[in-house]
Amino acid sequence: MGERITSETELIETFLAPLTEGAKGAFGLRDDAAVITPAPGTDIVVTTDPIVEAVHFFPDDSPADIAWKALAVNVSDIAAKGAEPFAYSLNLAFREAPRRDWVAAFTDGLRLAQQAFGCRLIGGDTDRTPGSLSIGVTMFGSLPAGTFVPRGQAQAGDHVFATGTIGDAALGLAIRRDPSALAHLSEEQRAFLVDRYLRPQPRLALAETLRRHATASLDISDGLLKDLARLAGSHGLDLSVDLIPLSEAARSALAHEPGDIEMVLAGGGDYELLIAVPRAAVEAFTQDARASGVAIRDLGVLKKHGPMRVLGTEGTEKMIHRLGFDHFSS
Amino acid sequence: MGERITSETELIETFLAPLTEGAKGAFGLRDDAAVITPAPGTDIVVTTDPIVEAVHFFPDDSPADIAWKALAVNVSDIAAKGAEPFAYSLNLAFREAPRRDWVAAFTDGLRLAQQAFGCRLIGGDTDRTPGSLSIGVTMFGSLPAGTFVPRGQAQAGDHVFATGTIGDAALGLAIRRDPSALAHLSEEQRAFLVDRYLRPQPRLALAETLRRHATASLDISDGLLKDLARLAGSHGLDLSVDLIPLSEAARSALAHEPGDIEMVLAGGGDYELLIAVPRAAVEAFTQDARASGVAIRDLGVLKKHGPMRVLGTEGTEKMIHRLGFDHFSS
Repeated sequence: MGERITSETELIETFLAPLTEGAKGAFGLRDDAAVITPAPGTDIVVTTDPIVEAVHFFPDDSPADIAWKALAVNVSDIAAKGAEPFAYSLNLAFREAPRRDWVAAFTDGLRLAQQAFGCRLIGGDTDRTPGSLSIGVTMFGSLPAGTFVPRGQAQAGDHVFATGTIGDAALGLAIRRDPSALAHLSEEQRAFLVDRYLRPQPRLALAETLRRHATASLDISDGLLKDLARLAGSHGLDLSVDLIPLSEAARSALAHEPGDIEMVLAGGGDYELLIAVPRAAVEAFTQDARASGVAIRDLGVLKKHGPMRVLGTEGTEKMIHRLGFDHFSS
Repeated sequence: MGERITSETELIETFLAPLTEGAKGAFGLRDDAAVITPAPGTDIVVTTDPIVEAVHFFPDDSPADIAWKALAVNVSDIAAKGAEPFAYSLNLAFREAPRRDWVAAFTDGLRLAQQAFGCRLIGGDTDRTPGSLSIGVTMFGSLPAGTFVPRGQAQAGDHVFATGTIGDAALGLAIRRDPSALAHLSEEQRAFLVDRYLRPQPRLALAETLRRHATASLDISDGLLKDLARLAGSHGLDLSVDLIPLSEAARSALAHEPGDIEMVLAGGGDYELLIAVPRAAVEAFTQDARASGVAIRDLGVLKKHGPMRVLGTEGTEKMIHRLGFDHFSS
């Protein structure tokens, strides 16, 4: 308890190698490379999104929460492309030898996240660094050849859907940063929001539905408006803030302080999906999404050209104007 | 000149996206993930080896040298497995916005290295970090399904070969660290050694030969003895220092200071290969290797059991004893 690990060998053999169980091409982390044997007719999807202490997580976040987030933010990208994750590599950079109990809790957290997402550790690297703790995941997913769902091919006339609820993570981060923030919410509501920040839930259940119906998709990592603008590309969109799907906790927050709409629009970290669906496929998409148990909300239709405009309700107009969202106009 | 880049968008669109040219699944770095479409009947080999400022390279190394090393150390692992590199992803973490001329020289260096190694950028991530400049490459290679050359399956009776010459990088590092080191060597010899340190040459030309003949292989990144011990596993090996292939510059260094054998045995960074070949395949292996233009040296035969012993010539015995290489005994 409190002791530090004594070698890279201990870190790899005791803590990391067990996470490769069942992954034949990982060689128990005893080789310099891993092998992926793709099933015939499949493409491999690759994404990488490192998380860094004090940038993407708090030094005193629980090791299990950090582990979850390290995998979840990458699995979310895989899900947005319509793929299913199966393997990942892990680059760990520590400033000093980590405490053994921290490593044990971190790798237990990785194991739980692996089970939740259906992927296994296949390789990586451990290093000392003069900087902050950095956890670099490269995630591999697979899908039937040619079915990758791109980010940038939404068409005019497509409906834009969002999954789940938006803004919870930004509100949760505000509480995580300052425990006295949003004090008017109930303990339950506050816990819900913090959990949404710490434990993003990649929308893996939608993968096949995306492949079948979507022209474009991405996950909301950098904020609703920024990511909507990416999906829309040169197309126009009028977004009514009243349509943004909100959790009961977020609605309570906004009822008390309408200015918090800023966090809903610009805060990231929800890892919900934005999905463009052609008019003709909307009904089938909606049915398939419901069958998969993921809530979706139609945010509007892409226009051929024009800016992305945010239409506020009374009380939020001013904030939206102040945020200067003309920045996203084309 | 001397100006810093002004945004992540500039870094990606101006400098990094052009490196994806010809890689269809990279989407010009405008998606959150990349796609790899494996040719039928091939396996994908994955390796990742980040390099960090002040740990793996000097802050004032030329950007082109840093770029070369970032790719070369990963390509070397791909080559050691008998695979051919075709793509990589790149995680860049900067403490502050980098200078534009640095980035331009760095990405020019990446382009040259890509051309030399036959791979293209397909994805990655750029970040700010409180720590040092960190360059994380994940390299992808391909080979015919089932032909991956492992690290740990050398057999008793196998001959152990080394490619090229050993120890140059460690001697070059000594000069890079202290320009007055090894002052008795000629300028040409010193430049040769420093180049060997800065610009490792992955032995890609041997990939097919390895797949055909080797039972095991790895690259020398952590030092000859450490990596030989990994290849040998539980097998014994008597290594005569006289058999270690040395460059003319390294021979000059040792003639002047026999104690520098320590750097040859324990210093890493040569990125030459160690290869185990069954007795029956030695002749064909030797022929194929020669045909590929890579010099190889037979270092001895693996014994069923026993320690790895280093047999020194007069003058080096003492140093080897002092280095305590019983550490590697089984």
